[in-house]
Amino acid sequence: MVYKKITLIGRSSESFDAAVDDAIDRANDTLDNVHWVEVDELGVEIASVDDREYQAEVTVAFELENDE
Amino acid sequence: MVYKKITLIGRSSESFDAAVDDAIDRANDTLDNVHWVEVDELGVEIASVDDREYQAEVTVAFELENDE
Amino acid sequence: MVYKKITLIGRSSESFDAAVDDAIDRANDTLDNVHWVEVDELGVEIASVDDREYQAEVTVAFELENDE
Amino acid sequence: MVYKKITLIGRSSESFDAAVDDAIDRANDTLDNVHWVEVDELGVEIASVDDREYQAEVTVAFELENDE
Amino acid sequence: MVYKKITLIGRSSESFDAAVDDAIDRANDTLDNVHWVEVDELGVEIASVDDREYQAEVTVAFELENDE
Amino acid sequence: MVYKKITLIGRSSESFDAAVDDAIDRANDTLDNVHWVEVDELGVEIASVDDREYQAEVTVAFELENDE
Amino acid sequence: MVYKKITLIGRSSESFDAAVDDAIDRANDTLDNVHWVEVDELGVEIASVDDREYQAEVTVAFELENDE
Amino acid sequence: MVYKKITLIGRSSESFDAAVDDAIDRANDTLDNVHWVEVDELGVEIASVDDREYQAEVTVAFELENDE
Amino acid sequence: MVYKKITLIGRSSESFDAAVDDAIDRANDTLDNVHWVEVDELGVEIASVDDREYQAEVTVAFELENDE
Amino acid sequence: MVYKKITLIGRSSESFDAAVDDAIDRANDTLDNVHWVEVDELGVEIASVDDREYQAEVTVAFELENDE
Amino acid sequence: MVYKKITLIGRSSESFDAAVDDAIDRANDTLDNVHWVEVDELGVEIASVDDREYQAEVTVAFELENDE
Amino acid sequence: MVYKKITLIGRSSESFDAAVDDAIDRANDTLDNVHWVEVDELGVEIASVDDREYQAEVTVAFELENDE
Repeated sequence: MVYKKITLIGRSSESFDAAVDDAIDRANDTLDNVHWVEVDELGVEIASVDDREYQAEVTVAFELENDE
Repeated sequence: MVYKKITLIGRSSESFDAAVDDAIDRANDTLDNVHWVEVDELGVEIASVDDREYQAEVTVAFELENDE
Repeated sequence: MVYKKITLIGRSSESFDAAVDDAIDRANDTLDNVHWVEVDELGVEIASVDDREYQAEVTVAFELENDE
Repeated sequence: MVYKKITLIGRSSESFDAAVDDAIDRANDTLDNVHWVEVDELGVEIASVDDREYQAEVTVAFELENDE
Repeated sequence: MVYKKITLIGRSSESFDAAVDDAIDRANDTLDNVHWVEVDELGVEIASVDDREYQAEVTVAFELENDE
Repeated sequence: MVYKKITLIGRSSESFDAAVDDAIDRANDTLDNVHWVEVDELGVEIASVDDREYQAEVTVAFELENDE
Repeated sequence: MVYKKITLIGRSSESFDAAVDDAIDRANDTLDNVHWVEVDELGVEIASVDDREYQAEVTVAFELENDE
Repeated sequence: MVYKKITLIGRSSESFDAAVDDAIDRANDTLDNVHWVEVDELGVEIASVDDREYQAEVTVAFELENDE
Repeated sequence: MVYKKITLIGRSSESFDAAVDDAIDRANDTLDNVHWVEVDELGVEIASVDDREYQAEVTVAFELENDE
Repeated sequence: MVYKKITLIGRSSESFDAAVDDAIDRANDTLDNVHWVEVDELGVEIASVDDREYQAEVTVAFELENDE
Repeated sequence: MVYKKITLIGRSSESFDAAVDDAIDRANDTLDNVHWVEVDELGVEIASVDDREYQAEVTVAFELENDE
Repeated sequence: MVYKKITLIGRSSESFDAAVDDAIDRANDTLDNVHWVEVDELGVEIASVDDREYQAEVTVAFELENDE
């Protein structure tokens, strides 16, 4: 069984932890076998949002099924 | 809303700018919400082409819809 | 024609070479135009397997058709 | 309009989130157009403080006015 | 007096901050002179735990005594 | 005589070359002794602009006078 | 429970796989809970050995007991 | 057949594309089998030239004949 | 209190140590609270000077007052 | 006595070990004093060869004689 | 025989060379078979010392005996 | 005129400065137009020499004539 990795950026108005959880939640919505997540970068968007948007770029590793 | 990132390599017989645009054009063909692009690497293929093929590896960030 | 890159992790109980081949085999199952592969990381999983599982994270580059 | 980037290290006795906010607050005190922030490094100072001081090195990007 | 650096991975079911504190607590159990800590990597283990396990790989710097 | 380095991001609707020149022009407006420039990153902003905005993050090295 | 990481260099006159196994074998001799291994660097020593010595620098992660 | 890689820095008063081409032209003058080129760094020299000199550091890969 | 980091290049006809000291001396001339310095790169300029000019690019960290 | 380093890419239809050996063999053909080799990158060429070509980019360090 | 690597930070009020030697001296005090040392980072501590403290972070490689 | 870069490792029983000078001296013996040198790595060989051998890996940039 082979793993595949994809890169997502989660976002939250609260915290970096919530931004990472946001990305994991989204991955779990469409993938059945998420195994682990690596945090690649943390950042804060300021100019285009009301206050501050915490962002977390993460790599999601999941076991590959017979579709992609 | 979560962003996703994918990696493409655009190609052009003219210039690096055109190679980057080639990758963005291809991303826009199948993705509705491309937000930004990061250039990862530039290179030139010589042996397997007529003259010189300028190549640009780019990371494309787009807002994730309910499909991929 | 644009290339796309994806990241897979092949696994083998025998060797790193077999782990890389495992990832390439899986890529060939669903992709028609794999051009080259770059080895990103090698590792060995020990605690959760019987003996040792050799793992190879690879980046697979393929020519993009009109679907993904 | 050109962006400029500077590097600050925010500090907090509470959390990394607060350390990042500390740096952004300081940037907002003297800069009008902060656009985004990248987190470069996280660390904890222990020997020279009472308990633990969470530190976040961040790069602040702002739109350059006619002064600096 | 020379410093030595070691690498630990703290774990928490709550947050990254708690995972870093977990590693520092463990270092303080056996080392008298911890001076500072650098965060190397953040990740989340999902497949082998009940919910999500936040992990923080940190480098711990301490002043070397006459034993190790 | 000591050199100082600062980081700017030039922008252009035309090309990466023009984005780099944009940053150099801005540096020359306020600095007398710019010696050289290093290109750190190239990118394209798409979502928040009309068409495509080519961006070049550059490091500018100049000989330090008696003010900054 | 906290993980600790140490760095070893295994050596073999046969192959890189055997050099990695050599380092894992050595780790297992003195550590009870080795969880995984990351390969950091591969090299070949030539001048100071008879033929060729394959070397593999690896990072070994193990669950920390109450001693080190 | 083994490839060899060398590092050249091409220069142009016009553009980065021309600086890369300058290095490839020079490689083609003395090497018969240049296969591909990787762009390592882009920069601009300002202080020691009349206007601006665009520079491109590239790695040139060629198939090794029986001489070098 | 927030730290700020700036990048300077010290120069000396004698040694790398003197080049680093040159940059620190310059930082102390205009900044009251320099805390530490990191050496980023060492190099030697030859073509444009009489003999050899040792250069040290350093990052200077200082506690930020109410001005910059 | 000074060492010099050059970069070669060995190739094999069998394995990565054989690709590294291929590069070392080629280095030994023309250089008398090869001291050690560092493996920089591993990859597999697929599209332009019959089956799979394992490639290993290596840095070869040798003691410099009075010619190059 | 397997090598092990550890990380030390030597310190000197005189020079970087002395800081490196300080770390090697300390390693030789407790280790019998130090083979080589790699310099990872150089820095200068200023705020917490009288004048300037030169620091060198080094990796020490030694042949592993039957104890650690 | 194109620059070329080569990599040398200078050695000295005295200091890192002398090791860098050793490499530059060697480059000047066979190259007419050395422009600058970048220090890539510093290390100390211990096991195979009498006391300590300071080593400096440097990249030498020179203006390319019509021969190499």
